Amino acid sequence: MQVPLTVRDHLERAALVYGDRVGVVDEPDQPAPPLLAADGGPLTYSAVYERSRALAAGLESLGVGPGGRVAIVSQNSARLLTVLYGAPSWGRVAVPVNFRLQADEVQYIVGHCGAEVLLVDPELEESLAGVTAPQKYVLGAATDELLYRHDLEPSGWEPDEDATATINYTSGTTARPKGVEMTHRNLWVNAAVFGWQAGVSDRDTYLHTLPMFHCNGWGMPFAVMGMGAPQVVLRKVDGAEILRRVDAHGVTFLCGAPAVVAMVLDAAAEWDGEIPGRGTVRIVVAGAPPPTRTIERVETELGWEFIQIYGLTETAPLLTMNRSRQEWDHLTPTERARKLGRAGAPALGTRIRVDGEGELLARSNTVLKSYWDQPEATAEALDGGWFHTGDGGTLDDEGYATISDRKKDVIISGGENVSSIEVEDALFSHPAVAEVAVIGVPDDKWGETVKALVVLAPDTSATEADLIAHCREHLAHYKCPTSVEFRDELSRTATGKLQKFKLRAPYWEGRDRMVN
Amino acid sequence: MQVPLTVRDHLERAALVYGDRVGVVDEPDQPAPPLLAADGGPLTYSAVYERSRALAAGLESLGVGPGGRVAIVSQNSARLLTVLYGAPSWGRVAVPVNFRLQADEVQYIVGHCGAEVLLVDPELEESLAGVTAPQKYVLGAATDELLYRHDLEPSGWEPDEDATATINYTSGTTARPKGVEMTHRNLWVNAAVFGWQAGVSDRDTYLHTLPMFHCNGWGMPFAVMGMGAPQVVLRKVDGAEILRRVDAHGVTFLCGAPAVVAMVLDAAAEWDGEIPGRGTVRIVVAGAPPPTRTIERVETELGWEFIQIYGLTETAPLLTMNRSRQEWDHLTPTERARKLGRAGAPALGTRIRVDGEGELLARSNTVLKSYWDQPEATAEALDGGWFHTGDGGTLDDEGYATISDRKKDVIISGGENVSSIEVEDALFSHPAVAEVAVIGVPDDKWGETVKALVVLAPDTSATEADLIAHCREHLAHYKCPTSVEFRDELSRTATGKLQKFKLRAPYWEGRDRMVN
Repeated sequence: MQVPLTVRDHLERAALVYGDRVGVVDEPDQPAPPLLAADGGPLTYSAVYERSRALAAGLESLGVGPGGRVAIVSQNSARLLTVLYGAPSWGRVAVPVNFRLQADEVQYIVGHCGAEVLLVDPELEESLAGVTAPQKYVLGAATDELLYRHDLEPSGWEPDEDATATINYTSGTTARPKGVEMTHRNLWVNAAVFGWQAGVSDRDTYLHTLPMFHCNGWGMPFAVMGMGAPQVVLRKVDGAEILRRVDAHGVTFLCGAPAVVAMVLDAAAEWDGEIPGRGTVRIVVAGAPPPTRTIERVETELGWEFIQIYGLTETAPLLTMNRSRQEWDHLTPTERARKLGRAGAPALGTRIRVDGEGELLARSNTVLKSYWDQPEATAEALDGGWFHTGDGGTLDDEGYATISDRKKDVIISGGENVSSIEVEDALFSHPAVAEVAVIGVPDDKWGETVKALVVLAPDTSATEADLIAHCREHLAHYKCPTSVEFRDELSRTATGKLQKFKLRAPYWEGRDRMVN
Repeated sequence: MQVPLTVRDHLERAALVYGDRVGVVDEPDQPAPPLLAADGGPLTYSAVYERSRALAAGLESLGVGPGGRVAIVSQNSARLLTVLYGAPSWGRVAVPVNFRLQADEVQYIVGHCGAEVLLVDPELEESLAGVTAPQKYVLGAATDELLYRHDLEPSGWEPDEDATATINYTSGTTARPKGVEMTHRNLWVNAAVFGWQAGVSDRDTYLHTLPMFHCNGWGMPFAVMGMGAPQVVLRKVDGAEILRRVDAHGVTFLCGAPAVVAMVLDAAAEWDGEIPGRGTVRIVVAGAPPPTRTIERVETELGWEFIQIYGLTETAPLLTMNRSRQEWDHLTPTERARKLGRAGAPALGTRIRVDGEGELLARSNTVLKSYWDQPEATAEALDGGWFHTGDGGTLDDEGYATISDRKKDVIISGGENVSSIEVEDALFSHPAVAEVAVIGVPDDKWGETVKALVVLAPDTSATEADLIAHCREHLAHYKCPTSVEFRDELSRTATGKLQKFKLRAPYWEGRDRMVN
């Protein structure tokens, strides 16, 4: 028997098996809308189901039928979850938009995906005042009765695992973000394999440190709901607040970029008493390869389990996972951190290979169906039946992938490949370095040479010569920067990734390509 | 991107990510065939992959192409695993046959499924000497070079998740067993959801207490291999030997029928010292609802986690799972055992309902595609788009299913439904009762009345009146047996299930139906 794999599986199981259990704990300082929890308290999974269903019915009454798009721009919130659950579970397409975007960027996305309804968090009402849509509503008590129609039933949708469930706009190196179409099957397989390999169970409590708009919170909202694990909403990432939430709610599982880990580590250094979650918390990290030093500190200073994954918005995101193995139990924390510094081994059902140009290619049920309304970009990304990650990398003897760089950022100096990440890692180990980007700049003799752009930590100092000398202690000579520039900040994408192409551009001005 | 969900995913990941790790530990007393481990020692997962591939190539050279069937009758062994992995991974269909069957029963299956090759374990060579097949080989050193063609590559198979991967013959209440066709998708989803919910990880070590022919070892051979967990083969179930293996190999995970649990409990009572696996082992039980007393003893006497599942060969088998929840942590072991005595809550993606006649119906990706060459039986089993389990049951407020009986075994006495299992459970709680079957027999006044067939434990005694009085202490009057007969043994199927229809038959002779 074939039953379509859809995210309604997760919602229905949570309601049926864990209906009385706390499902979603929203921020305590959020207004208490009557359609969410009457007292601002936690929502049971029954309530989460009912509100998701009512939201689908509300969209229906506003003219958003099966296949129709609803865009939502919101910080993490219970309401955003009901959109993420409710729209796809009844065949509507959720388009969760990055809340850090400027109004014109949001306008582009709303127009491009053809959203019939745009939902905006009250906090963003002012900044997005100029954005137009066929219908636009600010979330909150005033619109709850319109959007959450408990009195209606959403009209029939014939469940289809290949139907688009979400569209997630992602910025690459191109001018405009592209809309990644995720099918129900993409999301289901990602949730199952990621959830399985990360050990998500009904004894977990999940903390939403990750923005839900970002690749649908890496699909974890579906995985944790499917297992009936309570979810705690976090609107603004703050290291000390994360520790307090872990303590208060018994959080056992969270995800974040390396920057989030760094914030937690900083907060832990100031924390009074035992670190919450020692021996019980697992933190999944992706978005950029974290410095080895950071990984080691997660184990030694927090006593949390560090899990690295690698993937992209286009891959739901799970492609590879690196979780400490029995074979590594006898290693020192430093040695283990080095093992864990790799992107990881292919997840169940994922095939990875490196093409002749050093680019990682992937085949998996987590790979996107297509870019919305961009057939050419889709064909290019899926050329030859493999997804082109755009990331340069290698596969080692253990089958583990290591990301050497954004493909276009690989530095080739004197015929030797230099991983800018490796150089960045070396620079991070210097106490004065807070942020760093390593890029290739043109060099007459070597083709390219290595340049480091550095933001110093507060109240520290270091000279160019200091940092180059430091690198030479750790790296082969050809890998070391030949110049260091100090900056106040580094250009990043909305999701925190370094915009290497922007950082590199000034040095390559007037040339027709950016590699030598 | 859609990538077919096939069991090759599990085999490939084990070889790629856990290639150097111990994969399969065969019985130490098995002959050491050169094509398995040279020293009779464990096979790495690379070796498991290579032997599975070589087996597929060997079948190819014998004329078994994609879609062709290979039947194998064997106790648990590494070779059986290579057939279970190798045949489907390259598109051949594995037909693992119950090794307890008589020659004529095996002959029926070989003929019915149209197997081109029949493989027989050396131990069964004599008893199955009369069975014929287009090609028949006794496994072992003499045929290894023919069957495992390391020098050949199996010919192309276009992976297809809807293709049949295995056919498992299962005996019901009909005269001849039916061949359950399991697709790759059936097996994949079963492995993922079962593995996820049971917490299978690469830190597990699995013990094959379950016969691999039985519903493909409940699909666990795929799940544990996909996670890279080592597997220890056990050919003959013996309580003390299970404890020794748990001790010797650090086993953390096993499956079995209630009878296996009873054997382990008996062995533990005689065990010298700390019970191996206390606090680390999980045991999954299915096949029949175990007595509450048994569940409690697993927790208190073994210190193992008890997990119950419910399903059938037709459902891969996972339909429901019952694993202790945080909410039950404060309960006494007795109270918790009562909670765990239910069949469980629907697994992710499974829908269960009870029809007007009290029969459990299920929809899930784990439900069979069809019975091989029996379109009418298929249509009947899948009537209305739901799989008819043939089991009577209920769903409680928590969404948990309880199996009251084989549908046809429900006893209706004086208009009241009596669950024979409930009565059996009550009788089990009497120290003199070793085995029991409760059946309905015709009664002029009440339609049916409750009869208990009892096997007494060695060196104990109890009278009919004793046992009826004991039941009356625990059960409503109408549920208690009106008669008890003592037997030396009870008729069971090859997989240990009570053959209630056989036990009941003599009492209903001369009537045109067996319910009143």
